[in-house]
Amino acid sequence: MPTLGALQVIEVRGAPEATLGDGELLRALGDAVVARLGLTVLGQPQWHAFPPRDGPVGGHTGLWLLAESHLALHSFPESGSLTLDLHSCRGVLAFPWEELIYSFLGPSEVRVRIVDRDESR
Amino acid sequence: MPTLGALQVIEVRGAPEATLGDGELLRALGDAVVARLGLTVLGQPQWHAFPPRDGPVGGHTGLWLLAESHLALHSFPESGSLTLDLHSCRGVLAFPWEELIYSFLGPSEVRVRIVDRDESR
Repeated sequence: MPTLGALQVIEVRGAPEATLGDGELLRALGDAVVARLGLTVLGQPQWHAFPPRDGPVGGHTGLWLLAESHLALHSFPESGSLTLDLHSCRGVLAFPWEELIYSFLGPSEVRVRIVDRDESR
Repeated sequence: MPTLGALQVIEVRGAPEATLGDGELLRALGDAVVARLGLTVLGQPQWHAFPPRDGPVGGHTGLWLLAESHLALHSFPESGSLTLDLHSCRGVLAFPWEELIYSFLGPSEVRVRIVDRDESR
């Protein structure tokens, strides 16, 4: 029976404001996840740059529609934080989240949680 | 301090195959969530219809980029299942998921879990 896979839920805190407002860098981060995991992007990633809210730079949202489900990224420069969600119907894809995210964003904290979508109640 | 909000993680099982292959119906389901919660869609929802895999109809993926974060939907007709994820930086938005999903899809099971993104380690 096909499985629903797993969701990897990631919160990043303590990243520099300017970094979290840099759309090109954030897009490269998401693209790196996709490339290193060998995922297949369908169409173009959807992107939105928000106007500044409580600081000099605005946040970004990126959504990658994948053959294997999706990747979502949201940055919140005003609080130094970012979220990443990877849903893969192939299950939990082992990935060095901390290593990649530290190299792109230099945050103080990366938290990764896994939600098993096939787990029984 | 701004919050990262919450992710509502939903799995639906035991829905009719034809229903899960009906892109218009699934899009209407996502649009109904957005409308009833008063969320703001930015741009057009991104949609992909997959070719059939292990049955007569193929699955669908829909991604709604929201001012409040995102809504993602994936249907798997071959296993009678569907996933919905709503990330809202406004926190947990109370919503009658079961009622709405039963009315659209007539499944045997709807499971809703909440991931608090602001919870400390």
